[in-house]
Amino acid sequence: MRQSQLFTKTRREAPADEVSQNAQLLVRAGYVHKEMAGVYSYLPLGLRTLNNIVQVIREEMNAIGGQELVMSSLQDKELWSRTDRWDDAKVDNWFKTEFKSGGETGLGITHEEPLTRIMTDHISSYRDLPVYAYQFQNKFRNELRAKSGIMRGKEFMMKDLYSFSRDDAQHKEFYDMAREAYLKVFTRIGIGDRTYVTFASGGIFSEFSEEFQTVSEAGEDIIYIDEEKRIAINKEVYTDETIAKLGLEKEKLIEKKAIEAGNTFSLGTRFSEPLGLLYTSEDGTKKPVVMGSYGIGPTRLMGIVVETLADEKGLVWPESVAPFTYHLVSLGHDGDEVSKTAEQLYAALTEKGIEVLYDDRDVRAGEKFAESDLLGMPYRIVVGKDAVANGAFEVVTRATGEVAKKTREEILAA
Amino acid sequence: MRQSQLFTKTRREAPADEVSQNAQLLVRAGYVHKEMAGVYSYLPLGLRTLNNIVQVIREEMNAIGGQELVMSSLQDKELWSRTDRWDDAKVDNWFKTEFKSGGETGLGITHEEPLTRIMTDHISSYRDLPVYAYQFQNKFRNELRAKSGIMRGKEFMMKDLYSFSRDDAQHKEFYDMAREAYLKVFTRIGIGDRTYVTFASGGIFSEFSEEFQTVSEAGEDIIYIDEEKRIAINKEVYTDETIAKLGLEKEKLIEKKAIEAGNTFSLGTRFSEPLGLLYTSEDGTKKPVVMGSYGIGPTRLMGIVVETLADEKGLVWPESVAPFTYHLVSLGHDGDEVSKTAEQLYAALTEKGIEVLYDDRDVRAGEKFAESDLLGMPYRIVVGKDAVANGAFEVVTRATGEVAKKTREEILAA
Repeated sequence: MRQSQLFTKTRREAPADEVSQNAQLLVRAGYVHKEMAGVYSYLPLGLRTLNNIVQVIREEMNAIGGQELVMSSLQDKELWSRTDRWDDAKVDNWFKTEFKSGGETGLGITHEEPLTRIMTDHISSYRDLPVYAYQFQNKFRNELRAKSGIMRGKEFMMKDLYSFSRDDAQHKEFYDMAREAYLKVFTRIGIGDRTYVTFASGGIFSEFSEEFQTVSEAGEDIIYIDEEKRIAINKEVYTDETIAKLGLEKEKLIEKKAIEAGNTFSLGTRFSEPLGLLYTSEDGTKKPVVMGSYGIGPTRLMGIVVETLADEKGLVWPESVAPFTYHLVSLGHDGDEVSKTAEQLYAALTEKGIEVLYDDRDVRAGEKFAESDLLGMPYRIVVGKDAVANGAFEVVTRATGEVAKKTREEILAA
Repeated sequence: MRQSQLFTKTRREAPADEVSQNAQLLVRAGYVHKEMAGVYSYLPLGLRTLNNIVQVIREEMNAIGGQELVMSSLQDKELWSRTDRWDDAKVDNWFKTEFKSGGETGLGITHEEPLTRIMTDHISSYRDLPVYAYQFQNKFRNELRAKSGIMRGKEFMMKDLYSFSRDDAQHKEFYDMAREAYLKVFTRIGIGDRTYVTFASGGIFSEFSEEFQTVSEAGEDIIYIDEEKRIAINKEVYTDETIAKLGLEKEKLIEKKAIEAGNTFSLGTRFSEPLGLLYTSEDGTKKPVVMGSYGIGPTRLMGIVVETLADEKGLVWPESVAPFTYHLVSLGHDGDEVSKTAEQLYAALTEKGIEVLYDDRDVRAGEKFAESDLLGMPYRIVVGKDAVANGAFEVVTRATGEVAKKTREEILAA
């Protein structure tokens, strides 16, 4: 895409009303727009980035048998009353509103209830199990504070997968697969090395839930890491008993701040029983379906990638999530030879289906480079006089600052 | 995809609480689930269909220079107060709710206001214009009645594009391009022949808006069509004056019921003035940006395709929107030769990247055929004894009922 056509502009100064690094950089670079505290819109570069993260997650969810659907945001009060999660005294972050046709409704905070009800139409026999279904959808949570930019919003995108199994053994099998799939997601988007399976409080149906915590100074959680085993304990369950139960040694554990990048819960029959999701087992008896839920927030992941990989010059995107792999920066003016060489390379890259943002604007080189650093594409290709004279293009790796001279053929072969 | 793995089941009977044909069929076929009146979830087959429609629209919007973004659902009361569209006396279909952190918010009914505000950060000079930006997003409208299935929901997906131009001439240029792009969308999804550019009431800044009306008995609108010129007049502006102004002849106009499939509005400076979206023109003066808005509802389009193409046996999808192009129906049992032949064809089709739903279940042939008709894939490939004995596969075109015998090679070459 030609940068002269991209409608978003960058800003030199961070917005005064943003305290988090991720929102400061993303707003400056024109990736997101703040609508209100904790409410963001995703501009073209931001949406491309988000879509790349979504696609990585989708591929990993499909690989373990997930079937994608999308549920409504508007929620049925009656349904949530049956599981006792409607009352504000039980769940305190609903946005509630009223139908003009009569009756209250709320905006989906999560979707165990509606999906369990949907499944009562489709699951009746043990032959129908297991089933795994997931969606990408905006959740709404009426948070009192929202100071973490896109990492904790009042409206944010969630990938939520729910598993439906015959019994604990069948549930456990998928639960373990989901853990591996989650670790693959974090590795693919570039935060695998600093993300740990972390044991946290489990709720009614299991002793622990599993969180995936990414070490970061911007984190709101405290975790204790066993670096060798690559697992951690959340402070909320950090007791001698937990340490012993997990076979860890207190002396080896290192305290770090971390951000929750995902979580998985064993739900047992917490939802299937009150909502009547039963199946006929092989022995002919009716049994409640055993469920699990598995969450990753793509918007939050985008924030985590910014917090953990950005530097003092701006954003740094891994190839897997970058809106464009290459930032082609022309130092030419008004159709001179440099401009022509840049145009030719842009055409060749585009024809090969390579994603490239092409800075074709007539702007000072220094300004272009500073903006290119802020935008954070993995590789910058500089087209200057050397490209015309010797066919040598400067290729700068954003993450390391490494500079290489490459020919047109070498660039196109990559 | 193997049908034995697909979690959704079909039903023989239409749900008692649905009056519209589109919802009756889509619920029976397991494409959608009704959460509440006017609120639907999209199950795997429904989501695949919807995504295909979205992709067609996206391609046509990109082709005319649209840049995709996505805005928030939660809306800023203060912003909408400035254009006088917050008050319930002015706009009567808001869902409103409150932040726990204080203050009211509403769920986006449309997005002129937030996008105009976003553009004040990015448009300052005539060089920044024109700009076209669009999104796919769920809108929320607090409708009193919702009897049209997915064609009129309280929560529904909208593609809304907004144009920002220097003046009326530049606006008009894009407005005409958008009309052509819309017509391409309707043609590509199979309703082009029954969809008409229809003149309707325009509002403050232009005499007419343009609607795209699809002829259907399920329609809520009445239009008067000039079949030769392929344009129509909405009843709301059907006067002798309008007929004369459009150069039509009353005698030639035919009255039909129709469904609004899309619309385009010239907005003038209705939003740019109150929200301060000004640009510096070539002569150095500040001028308000001239805007337009362009809407198509992908969920509504999906409903229109059902209403206009379905028959008494069930859904009928054009290839462009079908969740799968082929429905491969095996009449084999328990690994017999027929089953093996079907498995081989499934593997070959899948390897070629052809989208196929494979009915690998051990179910009676009659039941399979009835279900296949209900699900509505464009082509059904039947694998029976003839396929094993003579290599002949029966291929049935869903829309016409046409039956052909084809070899494996002919099918794979298609």
